[in-house]
Amino acid sequence: MADRLAALSAGLAELGCEALLIVARTAQDPDLAPFVGAAHLGECQLVAPRDGPAHLAYLTPMERDEAASTGLALLTPEALDLTRWASEATEPAEHMARVARKALQLAGVVPGRLALAGHGQAGVIAGACHQLAKEGWTIVPGNSLVLALRKRKTAAELASLRAAAAATCAAMRRMAELLSAAFVQDDHTLRLEGEALRVARLRDEVARVLAGFGLEQPKGNIIAPAEEGGVPHSTGTPDRILCAGESLIVDLFPHAGMWADCTRTFCVGTLPEPLARAWTAVRDALETAYLRSALGAHGWDIQETICAHFDQRGYPTPISSPGTTIGYVHNLGHGVGFDLHEPPIFKKNSGAEGVLRVGDVFTLEPGLYDPTPGTGYGVRLEDLVWLGPEGPESLTPLPYEIDPRGWSGAVDRGFSGRR
Amino acid sequence: MADRLAALSAGLAELGCEALLIVARTAQDPDLAPFVGAAHLGECQLVAPRDGPAHLAYLTPMERDEAASTGLALLTPEALDLTRWASEATEPAEHMARVARKALQLAGVVPGRLALAGHGQAGVIAGACHQLAKEGWTIVPGNSLVLALRKRKTAAELASLRAAAAATCAAMRRMAELLSAAFVQDDHTLRLEGEALRVARLRDEVARVLAGFGLEQPKGNIIAPAEEGGVPHSTGTPDRILCAGESLIVDLFPHAGMWADCTRTFCVGTLPEPLARAWTAVRDALETAYLRSALGAHGWDIQETICAHFDQRGYPTPISSPGTTIGYVHNLGHGVGFDLHEPPIFKKNSGAEGVLRVGDVFTLEPGLYDPTPGTGYGVRLEDLVWLGPEGPESLTPLPYEIDPRGWSGAVDRGFSGRR
Repeated sequence: MADRLAALSAGLAELGCEALLIVARTAQDPDLAPFVGAAHLGECQLVAPRDGPAHLAYLTPMERDEAASTGLALLTPEALDLTRWASEATEPAEHMARVARKALQLAGVVPGRLALAGHGQAGVIAGACHQLAKEGWTIVPGNSLVLALRKRKTAAELASLRAAAAATCAAMRRMAELLSAAFVQDDHTLRLEGEALRVARLRDEVARVLAGFGLEQPKGNIIAPAEEGGVPHSTGTPDRILCAGESLIVDLFPHAGMWADCTRTFCVGTLPEPLARAWTAVRDALETAYLRSALGAHGWDIQETICAHFDQRGYPTPISSPGTTIGYVHNLGHGVGFDLHEPPIFKKNSGAEGVLRVGDVFTLEPGLYDPTPGTGYGVRLEDLVWLGPEGPESLTPLPYEIDPRGWSGAVDRGFSGRR
Repeated sequence: MADRLAALSAGLAELGCEALLIVARTAQDPDLAPFVGAAHLGECQLVAPRDGPAHLAYLTPMERDEAASTGLALLTPEALDLTRWASEATEPAEHMARVARKALQLAGVVPGRLALAGHGQAGVIAGACHQLAKEGWTIVPGNSLVLALRKRKTAAELASLRAAAAATCAAMRRMAELLSAAFVQDDHTLRLEGEALRVARLRDEVARVLAGFGLEQPKGNIIAPAEEGGVPHSTGTPDRILCAGESLIVDLFPHAGMWADCTRTFCVGTLPEPLARAWTAVRDALETAYLRSALGAHGWDIQETICAHFDQRGYPTPISSPGTTIGYVHNLGHGVGFDLHEPPIFKKNSGAEGVLRVGDVFTLEPGLYDPTPGTGYGVRLEDLVWLGPEGPESLTPLPYEIDPRGWSGAVDRGFSGRR
């Protein structure tokens, strides 16, 4: 945390700003959480002067205990002079500006250049900034600064990521168990426990396993068979009955304090040749991605390597065919932590946010897609990776096998440092 | 939906705006969801001209099927000319402005007054608005306009609210079951299944029951005993062992498409006199709140009535003692739907957003609090209420009894129209 605050001070100096203001609708705001931890707060603001302690402004006396748990200097509703408005409807932009103005004043920041981060209602933010601008504040975007501070995870944050990843692995293993236990009918549909096996049955099971570990899925999940999985962001139709010989992408991205993210692809029964070929190409791509994920590597360089890998095997890529919806159609990965997508990034022309450093946590997730109805498939293998001083370590050390029956008794492994 | 779009057009005319722009990080954005339903989309924007069809701009070809499921006119990534940036890191404020500029142009909106709604990164929004302002756009806050449109729920939205409320009731009944089954030790602590009964055990059970119904708790829940419950927003310490003779507030506010919200207060064993008195006062207050929740009633008027009710019984209130942390310390309720808190509101000096109308869904949640360590307590009873043409109907028709043993076999009821 001391490192993070020092980096914040340096970042503010670079932006020419006297302070950072974070507006948030809850303390779980991914820009605010790195500073307040797991406190349960509603709407609040944080003022971090370039040269002084950060102050947390909370807006209702009911939250005094939760606010105190952050260990930050507090600006109480009374100090913010909020009691007289508490029961009154106020124009939201005026309310936000009023709180910010008072919080900045109490934290000793005088009007000047101010970096703004956090999240909120777009129109309200625009209105509040318009008012503050009239009072001498020059507001500059500060979200990227906070994203940079969030990139390197603390030991406590890594522990939280490990716990979320472990629960995700348990849910994935349960998928392999259910698929292994399924019976293949003459018409190739799968049956389990006397019923046709549908996407919804697997989705219910994922929710149950994750709930047992205290995880939730605010952004849902992807359990997408065959051509549905051929479109990477299709979530999978609940009523769809699963069949032998088709691909099934299971992509879980649950949350408990921090996010986790992991994908495996299954196929029950005989593997069609195009699917077998694609799976081998994806597994090899993932191994290559691990080998290239060294300290100081650029995410885009690894993406280029993976594109070349798929290109050599005859699959279109975003480099060979920009905008392609067949073949390899997306980026290689993304940082994971306070939000499901954060730095490091794997995009072209990125700066420091695109360089892999110690303490980063990110996904590696090559995939191949064919959305053709009837014959389409999707294959994606995704690990959540922590980049330690000795190289990448998978936080999701599960088998990669596409046959769920191959998972039973398989030793946890991955293409990571612990091989 | 036709009603909502007509109201949008009228609201834009009132604001003097040619169009509404909604920016969103996902389709679950509570300002966007009323227009797109349950589609799974990442970052996107919606342009709704005052006199023309709404257009949805989605940003990656991977989401084409989900975007099509909304039934809206679509602005594809190709039409938005996004393919050439898809693999490149772009400055986020510039990216948002670029998409908005192109989406507005494709929807036939020329620079002028623009209402802005949705949610996003505060600094990015400020930066994008700054750029658009230089190009002739005058941006005015539009979140309140959308909040007004969200107030009256459609039949489909009410069905979703009913389902979420029913699952919440199942979880609450399970709490009563576990508390009924607990054994009181000589030292007044509770035991269940051979272990001390802690807050964490109840919280795990809530998660399991809700997961079985497909609900999640992105904002957590409150399971707060004794003086912890005496501070309304304290969530309850997981390791805290529950005791006989103390209050236990259980406030569940899960989510599945729409939100639900319900609170009951329990006490195992002999009820201390102050707690018994407070519970009776709160239960009577809830009955009064139901009687006053008529069509056209002002939320603040009902709050005043409830404050007078508690005042007469000797409890401080926000009217008699602004900022009080003892007695009745909060507002009576809030609307619930796309977000956990939305109109109608129960605050002073509110306009149309403070008037109860047919189709509104809101909580009624009187409570009394004493945060004194050792002797403190919290009592809150909260129903989720739908205001139908014939009056308020509880969507959470659970017993109000504080003794969990009184719940077994109790007929579902409530102070609502179905008595």
